[in-house]
Parts: sequence; structure tokens; C-alpha cells
Amino acid sequence: MSAAKRGAWILTIGDELLRGEIVDSNKSFLSERLLQLDLESTRHVSVGDDPAEITEVLRQAVAKARVVLISGGLGPTIDDITTAVVAHTFDRPLVRDPEQVERIRSFFAALGREMSANNAKQADFPEGADVLPNPVGTAPGFGIEVDNSWIFCMPGVPRELYRMMDEQVLPRLQRLFSTDQVVRSTLLRTFGLGESALDRELADLSDASAGISIGFRTQFPDNLVRVVSRAPDEAGALRELERVVDEINSRLGSIVLGRGERRLETIVTELLIAGKHTVAVAESCTGGLIASLLTDTPGSSACLLHGVVAYSNDTKIRELGVSPADLEAHGAVSEPVALQMAAGVRERAGAELGIATTGIAGPGGGSEEKPVGTVYVALASPGGNSVRRYQLFTERSRNKQLAAQIGLDWLRRQVLGLELPDETFPRLRDTRQAR
Amino acid sequence: MSAAKRGAWILTIGDELLRGEIVDSNKSFLSERLLQLDLESTRHVSVGDDPAEITEVLRQAVAKARVVLISGGLGPTIDDITTAVVAHTFDRPLVRDPEQVERIRSFFAALGREMSANNAKQADFPEGADVLPNPVGTAPGFGIEVDNSWIFCMPGVPRELYRMMDEQVLPRLQRLFSTDQVVRSTLLRTFGLGESALDRELADLSDASAGISIGFRTQFPDNLVRVVSRAPDEAGALRELERVVDEINSRLGSIVLGRGERRLETIVTELLIAGKHTVAVAESCTGGLIASLLTDTPGSSACLLHGVVAYSNDTKIRELGVSPADLEAHGAVSEPVALQMAAGVRERAGAELGIATTGIAGPGGGSEEKPVGTVYVALASPGGNSVRRYQLFTERSRNKQLAAQIGLDWLRRQVLGLELPDETFPRLRDTRQAR
Repeated sequence: MSAAKRGAWILTIGDELLRGEIVDSNKSFLSERLLQLDLESTRHVSVGDDPAEITEVLRQAVAKARVVLISGGLGPTIDDITTAVVAHTFDRPLVRDPEQVERIRSFFAALGREMSANNAKQADFPEGADVLPNPVGTAPGFGIEVDNSWIFCMPGVPRELYRMMDEQVLPRLQRLFSTDQVVRSTLLRTFGLGESALDRELADLSDASAGISIGFRTQFPDNLVRVVSRAPDEAGALRELERVVDEINSRLGSIVLGRGERRLETIVTELLIAGKHTVAVAESCTGGLIASLLTDTPGSSACLLHGVVAYSNDTKIRELGVSPADLEAHGAVSEPVALQMAAGVRERAGAELGIATTGIAGPGGGSEEKPVGTVYVALASPGGNSVRRYQLFTERSRNKQLAAQIGLDWLRRQVLGLELPDETFPRLRDTRQAR
Repeated sequence: MSAAKRGAWILTIGDELLRGEIVDSNKSFLSERLLQLDLESTRHVSVGDDPAEITEVLRQAVAKARVVLISGGLGPTIDDITTAVVAHTFDRPLVRDPEQVERIRSFFAALGREMSANNAKQADFPEGADVLPNPVGTAPGFGIEVDNSWIFCMPGVPRELYRMMDEQVLPRLQRLFSTDQVVRSTLLRTFGLGESALDRELADLSDASAGISIGFRTQFPDNLVRVVSRAPDEAGALRELERVVDEINSRLGSIVLGRGERRLETIVTELLIAGKHTVAVAESCTGGLIASLLTDTPGSSACLLHGVVAYSNDTKIRELGVSPADLEAHGAVSEPVALQMAAGVRERAGAELGIATTGIAGPGGGSEEKPVGTVYVALASPGGNSVRRYQLFTERSRNKQLAAQIGLDWLRRQVLGLELPDETFPRLRDTRQAR
């Protein structure tokens, strides 16, 4: 029977999911992580806090899948029934784990609080379960084997789930399902090419090597490239992984922002801080978004000296020293104005670098000569000033996001000594829309 | 058999969902909409583009649910198999609808393009289907009745799905399932109280009236209150709905931001534009986020004159006229500095209103006297200047979001002549985390 089982089911439990009160991003996280082990998700299911519904789905899942990942319902309240229902469905008695009771008690003690009686139930597990520690919350998780399938129950709170999946569940799955093969994987973050273009650039890499597979995930405006490497031993898997990553880096060049989950704003802020660079920002069409993204990273006060949101011509003239004659002759969305904004804010702030944006985010304000989506980005630096014109998509909030991302990317390229991208950048047209 | 059927299943179809490439927010949207008709979702399922998997779930869904909402798989490609699988599963022949072929052809003609042969398949429907027009895309949807259950298939692209659900499916469901009762509902957006506090304030309203039910949805930092009213006729349902909305408005007062899905930044920008108010923004801990939110709304150039991101003391002194002595004596996160920032930016920009934030977003920078989450908000206006200290949560990105939201809320209250909220605001501690 187990021969016919394949892939993984992901089951999330909670009435709040079925009332649409929150968007359930746990399932996409878990699916992505499973792909790093080459395990395919075949079904996602959400049910409410209802024992009959949970039991029905558990039985179906165990009949069809090799792995069942469950999140939610491990809390202390009366609605949290996942553990009890799993135990009952598969005829396992619940056993209290004294070590986990103590851990939960210490967790509350560290917060200066008493553990309530309810919380003790979080130390109950089906007999024989493999307990998964939760370093950042009260709910431990657990794994049990049922009929040749492995079930892992994890908390629904994302930061607890993410950590338990990465630190506890993935290593166990790797041991369980990769006995003849070691799997190693990595994510490369790219900005500048759409998913189909990336696929065209890289498809032959997985065709050429039996142990390599390549996948994509969109996180607008970035595209993530996932490289999975399988080999009989770890050294071989890592060697092949790094060989392919090097090849991807050499094919894609400067559009690779880095490895892992770090966003561009974090990468840039850390580069600026590490190199003791200082920056000032003058924003028209991005309306403060570049400054806001830079200040999302702790410690950004070390590099961001000054930001100006110069939506009006008056502000551009008075606060940035833009020439009224150039505003008149070329318009606010123009090469000379962008350059003067960047140079002006740099000088005012006494910063090493000045970055500026001016454009037409939409939906109004476009013309034949300068349609919605026209954006100028300019950089002022000790080595000279640069400006480029880009043609972005045609929807306001994405135009703003893209223009801010290009501004941040210019800072990254400047600090790393890379070329600034030409007018055809970014080529994201085929990027899949986030749902 | 159909007597045992209850609620709705929501089925989303597409390999990209199971690969975790996108977060599937369609399910939470559809669930929320169903609750407006008092229809409860009992299960969410996602499967890949696999006929056997889709068929299995369709059969289960029709056996258990009165309504089955499906999104995805209506496109023109070979992977888009939803219509064919629904027809095959329930033994209905596929019939091409000439009217829809023409509509799709015109859709492409309007874009100056030829309809490809693939697209004609989007005009195929199971025999007897009720075709649902798609005014914003090529894929029409359809509804069919199977064994006393209603199945509605809609596109996966959110803007097409949202419109089809609201304009086509909801009215049909209302006719199908509310023969003896008319259901009317509305959403009230609130900011300042957590979900449990709102529940305590409002719970008796649904207890007191058989036709009224009240629910909540979190959209950090807001909480939405959903009011559903049922009555034998439309006039009665609307009358009771408005009576309860009036009662909620009078109980909650100024924390109600408005009705519907409009966010605070949109509400504020529109209020500012309508009243011909002008504003200038000086941001320290919010780092440009207030300006960025204001400029998310088209037309905001009419009200936002100037924004300064004053992360450094130098910028506060030079660009906003903050007193170096006060910075020295009270620190950058202090009442006098917040007031001088607001007054300074207002004067520099020649704006009617100046709004300022200074605080400690975290994770570093806190002290016993001013812990992480300490934020001062100040407003300068023709009628005088105000400043308040707030104690927010302890995580950087949410502190930033909350501080920006409070700043925007001050602008709303100023324009509407409402009192500014006191130091205990906002009381969101019990707000459920978005997943």
C-alpha cells in the first residue's frame, strides 16, 4: 500500500483560516521548504477546529502521502485539539512529557509569570512521538510514524513554525527520505529578469546534470532561483551545488542580489554600513518608499543621513536646489531634474552618495512623450553623476515599488563597483502576479 | 443525502500553489465573501493541475458541501484543465458557446491582437452551465448544479476573481440560498482596539437581535468588523443593518475609520484633497513610511507639499530648525523635539499642517526611561501644536507601521475635528498576528 504513496500533504488547522480572517502563508512556506528536499506537495487542505473534519483529512492524508505536515491547533486553549485528534485517530494514548512540562514552566518563569494548568496540556504527546522543541514559544511540536507515513505537527504562529520546520523537521525528513541520496539546496535572489527569461537562461543546467534541479519563486519584484543538488554523499552534493551556483552567477551576472531570503533593502543597508558609506535620498515618484525601505533595517541610521520627499516643484527648487529654468524647460520628470535632485540632496546632507527618483507612477499624468511608468533614476557620487530613464509597467503601486527597487539596486551596484543597468532594465514583463 | 450537506468548500487549482511560489489569498477572500451571506466555509483545498486529483476532490466536495467555489485553471494553456475535468467528472458534455467565442475575439481585437486557437477553448462549458461573464479578462466562469450542490468556477487572477465573485456569484448564491431571508452586510474598518476588546464591546448586539451577526477580520494594524443582517425582505434587512451600524458607530466613536475596504492612507488623502488641506511630514522613526503611504493614493501631490526623513540630529537641526540645546537636554526622542519637527516642517513647506514622528523602533536603542516602542507624535496646525507619547509593541517593522498609522490617524482626526487619542492608544495588544 505504501508503495503507491507519494509526496506530501500540508494540513493547516483553525477556524480563523476558514473565516478568511487571515491569509494562510504557512502552506506556501512549507511547500517551498519541501522542494529543497525534492519532496513535492500534492495537496493543501485547511479545516476548522472540528475533530470529525480533522480525522477525515488525517486518514486521507496517511492513505495517500508519505509526509503529512500539520500546522496549528497546538495552543493551550480548548479549541486547540490537533494533538488529541491525531492521537485518537491513530489509536495512540496521550502521554504527558515531564521534561516538556518543565520547559514550559521555565518559559513562563522567564517572563515572570506562572504557567497555567491549560499550558500543561501542551506537554501531552501521542505515545512514541518524537518531540520537537520550540525555542521561541510554549508549544512543542512532534512527529509520529503511521502506516509508513510520517506526520509532523507544528505550531501555527509563523515565526515558531518557520524555525521548527528548518531546525527540526527538515533534518529529520532528510534522514528519512534521502537514505541513498544527500540533498543540498540554496536560493539565489535575482532582480531584473522575469521567470520565463530566467527559465530560458538556466533550463539546460538541470537537463545537463541528473543530480540538479532548478525552480523559481516570485516575490515581486524579485525572482528567486532554487537550486537543488542530490548526490550519494554530502561532499558531492555540495560540490555540484556550488558548481551550478557559480555557473548561474556567471550567466546572470549582476542581476543576482545574493543568496537566501534577505531582501535588497537589507543587502544594501548592510553593504552601506559595512563600507562606512553615507547616503541621502531625494524622492519624487517613490514618495518616501526608498527611505522607508532603507530604514526597515536596524542600524540604518549609520548610513542614511537625510531624505527628502519632493513631490512639488517648490520643494525641488527650495530644498534640493533644482533650477526653476530646467523645471520649466524639461518638466519635473526629466534627466536634468533627476540629476540636480541627486546632486542637491547629496550636497545638502554632506553625504557620499545621493540617489534620486522622478517619474510618473500613474494612473494620471502620462503623455505620449512620457507615458505612465516613465521614471528617471539619478546617482550623485564622488566619481561623478549618472542618470537613466526607465519604462516601467503601468500600475501605480507596482511602479512605485519597482522605481524604489531600481534606486536601491543602483546603490548596491555603486558600492560593489558594478555597472548601472541600461534602459531596457528591468525585463520583468512576464513576472507572474502574486495572488 | 443533500440534507447532510453543509457549508462551502473552496478549491484552488494550480501547480504553482503547491510549489509555494505564491501565497494563495483567493481562499481567504472567498471565505470572507461567503460569510456576508452567512455561508460558512468548511474546507479549503488546493490541488495541482492533475485530473485525478481534481476529480477526487470534486467528488468529495459535492458529497459534503452545498456550495463549491473553484478558482484557477480556466486559462488558455494546456495546463488549464478545470472546465474539462468538471465536465468529465460529472458526465456533462463540453459545449462551445458562440457568444463567448465572439466576446473573447473582441477582447483581443480591442488590444489590437488576434485571438489564438487556444483561447477558443475558454468558451467551452459543461452542458447546461450558467456562464459568468468576465469583463476584465478572457476567461469566463460558470456555475453548474450537481446533485443539489452548486459549483462555481472562476479565474485564478485575483482582480478577475474578485469582480466575478462580487458581481456574478454572490447575487446567484443569494437567490439560491436565501429564499426566505434577504441578507445584507457591511464592513466597518477600525483602528485602536484589538479583536477581543471589540468583541467585548459589541457581542451583545448579535445576541439582542436574531437577524444580526457580527464577525471580525484583522488586517494589521486595523480590525474590520463585519455586520450581517438577515430579514424576510430587503428593506427590513437594510433597516436593521443601518440601525446596528449606527449603534456600533456610537459605541466605538472615533476609532471607526470608515466603511468598506479603503485603508486609512486612502481615507486621509481623500479627506485632505477634498478639504483643500496641505500637509508636510517630518519623520524620524517612521523613516519615510508616512510619506510613502500618503503617496500611494493617486492625486496626493495636491496635498503633500514636503516630506523630510530626519534620521540624524544634524538633519533635525539643519532641515527642521530643531534646537540643538533641546536635542542635547531631552534627546531626539522627546516631546520638545517632536513639536519642533512638526512646527519646523510646516513652516518650511508653507503647509497648513505639519506632522512629525520620533521614536525608538528597535530592536536596539531602548532604555529604561524610553524602552523600544516609545514614540512621540506631534502635529502643528493653525489652531496650535500638540504632542503625545505612545508605547508601542516591541518589534521594529510593526512599531514603524503603527507609528505611521497613528500619524495618519492624527491627520484624519484633525481634519474631522475629532479629539487626538490619549497615551493609552492603540490598545491592540490582543491583535491576532497575520499569518
